[in-house]
This record gives sequence, C-alpha cells and structure tokens, in this order.
Amino acid sequence: MSEFKTVRGMRDFLSEEANIMKYIEGKARKVAGLYGYKEIITPIVESYKLLAAKAGEDVRLRMYAFQDLGKRMVALRPELTPSVARLVATTLRNEPRPFRLFCTGSLYRYDEPQRGRYREFWQSDFELMGSSKPEADAEILLLTNRLMKAAGLKGYTFKIGHVGVLRGILSQEKLNDKVQNEVLQLMDKKQYDEAFKIAGDSDASERCLAVLRDLVGLKGDSVFGTVEKIKQMVEGYEKAVAAAENLNEILKLVSESGSKIDVNVEASFARGLEYYTGMIVEVDVPELDVALAGGGRYDRLIELFGGEPTPAVGIAHGIDRIMLAMQEQKAPPETEEQETAMVIPIREESKGEALKISQMLRESGIAVEVEVMGRKIAKALEDADRRKIGYAIIVGERELKEGAVVIRNLKKRKQNTIKIENLAEAISGKTTT
Amino acid sequence: MSEFKTVRGMRDFLSEEANIMKYIEGKARKVAGLYGYKEIITPIVESYKLLAAKAGEDVRLRMYAFQDLGKRMVALRPELTPSVARLVATTLRNEPRPFRLFCTGSLYRYDEPQRGRYREFWQSDFELMGSSKPEADAEILLLTNRLMKAAGLKGYTFKIGHVGVLRGILSQEKLNDKVQNEVLQLMDKKQYDEAFKIAGDSDASERCLAVLRDLVGLKGDSVFGTVEKIKQMVEGYEKAVAAAENLNEILKLVSESGSKIDVNVEASFARGLEYYTGMIVEVDVPELDVALAGGGRYDRLIELFGGEPTPAVGIAHGIDRIMLAMQEQKAPPETEEQETAMVIPIREESKGEALKISQMLRESGIAVEVEVMGRKIAKALEDADRRKIGYAIIVGERELKEGAVVIRNLKKRKQNTIKIENLAEAISGKTTT
Repeated sequence: MSEFKTVRGMRDFLSEEANIMKYIEGKARKVAGLYGYKEIITPIVESYKLLAAKAGEDVRLRMYAFQDLGKRMVALRPELTPSVARLVATTLRNEPRPFRLFCTGSLYRYDEPQRGRYREFWQSDFELMGSSKPEADAEILLLTNRLMKAAGLKGYTFKIGHVGVLRGILSQEKLNDKVQNEVLQLMDKKQYDEAFKIAGDSDASERCLAVLRDLVGLKGDSVFGTVEKIKQMVEGYEKAVAAAENLNEILKLVSESGSKIDVNVEASFARGLEYYTGMIVEVDVPELDVALAGGGRYDRLIELFGGEPTPAVGIAHGIDRIMLAMQEQKAPPETEEQETAMVIPIREESKGEALKISQMLRESGIAVEVEVMGRKIAKALEDADRRKIGYAIIVGERELKEGAVVIRNLKKRKQNTIKIENLAEAISGKTTT
Repeated sequence: MSEFKTVRGMRDFLSEEANIMKYIEGKARKVAGLYGYKEIITPIVESYKLLAAKAGEDVRLRMYAFQDLGKRMVALRPELTPSVARLVATTLRNEPRPFRLFCTGSLYRYDEPQRGRYREFWQSDFELMGSSKPEADAEILLLTNRLMKAAGLKGYTFKIGHVGVLRGILSQEKLNDKVQNEVLQLMDKKQYDEAFKIAGDSDASERCLAVLRDLVGLKGDSVFGTVEKIKQMVEGYEKAVAAAENLNEILKLVSESGSKIDVNVEASFARGLEYYTGMIVEVDVPELDVALAGGGRYDRLIELFGGEPTPAVGIAHGIDRIMLAMQEQKAPPETEEQETAMVIPIREESKGEALKISQMLRESGIAVEVEVMGRKIAKALEDADRRKIGYAIIVGERELKEGAVVIRNLKKRKQNTIKIENLAEAISGKTTT
C-alpha cells in the first residue's frame, strides 16, 4: 500500500461530494449577488498577530501558526472575519460605507477531528460593515435563511443571543474584559458553575449571580416572550436592558419581513470569539452536533485593527457542514441534465477524426470523453456503460468515407449510422436517432 | 494607519478582480464538464514528504513547510499534481482507468514576488490518468486551448517539448538520475554552459555534448519541420528518437482535430519538476514573463506514490495569471445584465415593510440593497447613484397605505408611484415605469 496519505484531519472529496460543495458555494454566491454583497478574495496565510488579536483563547491555541522562510510569524486563517476587517481597516479605509462583502474559502483549526468538524473546512462569509442598525443584523439572518432554503434544508433553527446582555451585566459589575471573556467562554461551553465562580471571585454581586443563573435557566414560550423575560430579569443593568431591546428590534424586523424563521432565543448563549459586541447567532439542525453557521455583531474590530470606527455584523456558513446536513436530510442538489457521449476510434488512423468530432460535439454543449486507452470497441463500450454515458460514437474508416459514424444509444441499446453533421442534433435530442 | 497588513507575497482581490478569478474558474469548470473531467477537492495542507518527493529542488526549497501541533511535518501544496496522484495511488487505487480529474484552488511557493508571480496563487488543474497514448497528451493541449479561448485571450503560444529527448540522450550516456535532473534544471533556466559542463564532467561523450548544443540552438521553420530536425539530430539515441516520434504523433493529432493552436516546439525546454517523463508544455502570452499554464506527462509518479503503475498527463492553468493576461489584452469577462435596486424606508416604522419588499424583489431575481445606514433619502439616493444602482424604491407611510411605493429610475432620473405588486415587473423591464 501507499505510504502517502492525507494528513490527519484533512480530507479529499471525490466528485459527488465536491460537486455538492461547489453547488453550495454557487448558491451562496447567488445569495450574495441578490443581497448586494461584493465578492472579495483574501489570503489563507495571514500574520499571526492579526488572526490572534481577538480570536479568543480556544481558537488561538488551535491555529496552524508557523514562521515563514522570511521569519515572519504567520498562520493559516481559522476564520474569515479578521481578513475582511483588515481589508476595511486598510485598503477600503476611506471608501464610503456601508460595505457588503462576501468571500468563500478554506479555513484551518487544529481541532480533534469528529463528524462535521475537521482541521480543514470551508465557509462562505457575509459581512455588512458600516451600519449599527438592527436592520443590518436582520439582513444577516434573512440571507442566511435564504441560503439554507436554497440548499434544500428543512428543520433548521436559528439560535440567537446577544453578548450585550451578559457583558452589560458584567461590566456594570465592574468585571474587567479579561474576566468577562473567561466568563463568556465558560458559559459558551455550558460550564456554568465555573463561570459563576469566576464572576463571584471577581466580586460580582449576589444579584448579578442570581440574574446569570436566571438567564441560564430561562425557558421561553415564544421568541418575543423570551426577549421580554430577559428584559425583566436584567432590570437595573442598563446596557443589558438595551441589548435585550436591540434583540427585540432585530427579531421584529425579521418577523415583519415576512420570512418564516425558526428562532430560539438563548440568553446565556455566548460563542467563542472575543470580538462580538451585539447579536450572536448559530444555525443548527437536529441531525448534527455542530452548527451550520455562526456569526454576530462586532462593532469594534475594525477600529482595533487601526481602521475608522465601523460597526459591523457578519456570518459564516459552513459549506462542508451544510453538505453533511443535505446528505442527512436527503436533500440532493438540483442538477441539470447533461448529455454525454464517448467517442471511440476503431483504428489508429481515425484517432484524429475522433478528436475532431469530439470538439464539434463539445461546441454543442455535449460532454464528451474520447477513448484514450486504445481498447477494443467491446471493452470501451463496457466502460461507457458502467459510467452511465448516454451515447457511444464509433468512428470507423468505412463510415468516415461517407462522412458518417455509428451512434449507439447506450440506454436503449440501439445503434445506427448517422452523418457527422447531424450528430450533435441527434444527441441533444432535437431529432431522434 | 493600521499596523495590520497582508503578509508579503500574499494579496487581497477586490470585487472586480475576484469576479474575474471566479469567472475563469467557472470557465475551467465548464471545460472540465465538456471533456468529462470529474471535480475533486484535495487539502491545501499535505505531508511534506508527499509534496517534496518529486518536486525538484527549486520548488522543494520554496515550500511553506512546518510542523503542525501534532509534530507532523506538513507543507502547503506548491502544486496540485502530487495530491491528485496520491488520491489515485490510494483511494482510487482499484477503480477502473482512465481517470479524468479536475480541481482548482490556491497554491503556495516562497518565490520572490514579482508581476504575475506571488506566494499565493490559484490554478485549475486537469489530470488524465491511465493512458500512455498520444491522444491523451493531445487532449490536454486541446482543453487548454479551449480554456484560453473561453477566457477571451489572443496571441498565446504553446511552448512544447519532450523530456524524453534530453533524458533519452543522457541515459544512453549512462548519466544517473541525479545528474540528469541537474542538467535539466539548468537547461530549464537557460544556463546551458553550466548544464553542458555537468554533463561533460559526468563523462558524457563529445557527440552527446554536440547534440545538446545543436538542440539548444535549433530554430525550426515549422512545427513538424522542427520535430523532424530533432529526430535527425538525436539519431542513434534510441529513446530520444522515440520521444521525438511521440511528440510528432501528439502534434499530428492536435492538427487533425481541426483546432488551430499556435505551437512552438523547443527541444531544450525542460520545466522544473522532476516527475515529467514525456511531453511538456507551457502556454505563454507576449505581455507576460510568466507562463499561463504548465504541465506534461508523468508516467511514474503514481507508482512512486505506491499506486498501480498508471501513465498520466496533466496541466495546471494559472487563474491569477490568466486574469492578468485578460487585463493586459483588454479581454473583460462577459457579464450578464443584472437589475439592481436600493430599497429606502422613509421612517423607522416602514423598515419592516422595506425588508419585505426587498425579499419579494430578490425572489424575482433582482439584486437589492436595503438602506441600513439610517440616512435621509437624499443621502441614500446619492449613494445609490454613486454605486450605479438602477432603481431606488422609496417606502413611505402615505404610499404604503395604498399598497404602493415610489420607484425612481436613477438613470433616467424619473420617479412615480407604483403598486407593490407591480414593482418586480417594472424593474425587470417587462413593463415601463
């Protein structure tokens, strides 16, 4: 056997899956177009400093970081947002807002490989920069819903929270950013007791701890009911109340837009990245333990990167995870019918003619494989059959003299002789063979 | 200014260029479909050993190699062929031949950045595996020609050689592989004197050195004339003669296929990679110093990787280089007309309705941006104008009561009130506004 294999956590995709990945990417690109998001491409290799700046401990420790040959500390991007924010902080610095930016590509995290979680993964990323308004957040939710629908998914849920609720409470309690980050990271991992302990150790009040506990235990009956309950629970924590109101506005706009989105508001939901400042969101399906999409508002990242203060909200959609969900939900991509043919020269002398006929058929949009193995006709036909090719075109000296070839319909197992000039039409189905 | 920037040799592409890159990738994917190449995706991070095995010194020393967190020696792929060959040597090991495989993606080499040569670059890659026949080589040339034409390029030339000519001579002279590789690498860099010296030092005969000199100096009058001259020059070197005959067959098939390809046969052309065994090819345009595409036959690589003996031929097309050539040759991508609109709510209360109208228009295929900056109408219209948006839809309370909005044709600078249900049709141009 071969001593060479893929590196642990990295994968090959054969054509069936690769086609689904490209299909989803195409759908994301189409959504981007319809929502006015301009596509950009940013590098996979970025400076370590940029990627580490606000990634959060969990991501930071799992980056593929290394020195390049020029002794620069670089890393493979673990997410797309820092690159887009860098672009807006530098090249696009003085361009008028808003920016709607879209990109896709592969990302790298040294996670423990498991179903739906690999060390190389693919995302489409939408960033709306320049607006602090709730309609911007709503747009991110709406376009995500659009993409999930376009992928043919059913039964997906938007888990929505707002880091302003927790941070509003903790900052009023005078917990510094570092402690806040720790508390939120622990809550994100549902390690609530540890989170409360750290908050308590940092002199959070009894009231604060009680409110945190209430938020974690909160079970809402309806979306707006849950938001209202959060608002009541955090009474007195001014910024937390404002955060709940902001969440209410966003969800109201989504509702008014007429889009039916299945939303689950979770007050204690935090997400791992440190840069979020407002609404946060994940999309889940019951079939998978990992989220299909994740994002949120990050109003200070671009400034942190040296750019103009630019409020922003964005989301990334996991392309390989969406594929997995499509497979689980038996939602295959819609594919167009493609006519296929295999062109088989009988003898050495007709190889050139076979290539010529193939070129002609491709000009008509027919997918053509030429027999290149030097096989006998029977063997070649067997191979064509096995690969479900529609037609075999057999190019022989005798027929060529009459400007003709033999066409064999491999499904109907019928064959006849046909003038070369009528071949494309016969295969495209405009005339019968 | 921001302290964050792209790492040297890495680039951002804004939408204009990103769109061209995706356009070329789309054309390559279409060519792949028409020629029966199945798309696959392989990782960017591969084992160092795999990538270094037959890359050639030049590429090997410029790889982005590093240890991952599990102490594996890995590297960012500097080319796509080793990954595809690995796949064929392992997962596809027992599948029936031939394989026609297609992939695209980014690649990494620590080159000195210059016009058309960056440390991150993009390629589409076609590999035809399983056939040793000249029609396979011809197919690789034909599909490359098809892609260059699809990109709208003119005046490109195929530089074609055959490593079997030089290797045939050197092996008959009993020069070992290592020396052969050195000689070929030097000839590839046009350092002929150094190449001849190494050959001479390794006891190549006077006749051999004379033949090498003749091949370097060879100026052909026609494609087939040049190949014939090569054949005469290398007389007595059996394998070199066979190589010239093979080249002749390949070029004859291309010619018979009816495709007009501008071919330049260069006997001393070598290319940097060690794994080539047969025909080699590059595509050049006069506007650029770097090749737009490069490839060739490599009959032993898959076996070297532990797979079944599988003759193969392939080519990679530089997507960012093709873009550069398109820009130089003023060959913009063909784009489809896309109707665009900006939906502007006049007051807070009509934001939800604005989102709803936007969703409706997108369902009709219209690209819609919603005003999310909370600007006054005049400011928003100015912005829409600057960005060459076709229509502004102004959503006001008064018109909404009648189920209507104001539509403004931003090109004609005309506006009127219209029922919401007629809006999509009005913008799609099926009725006049």
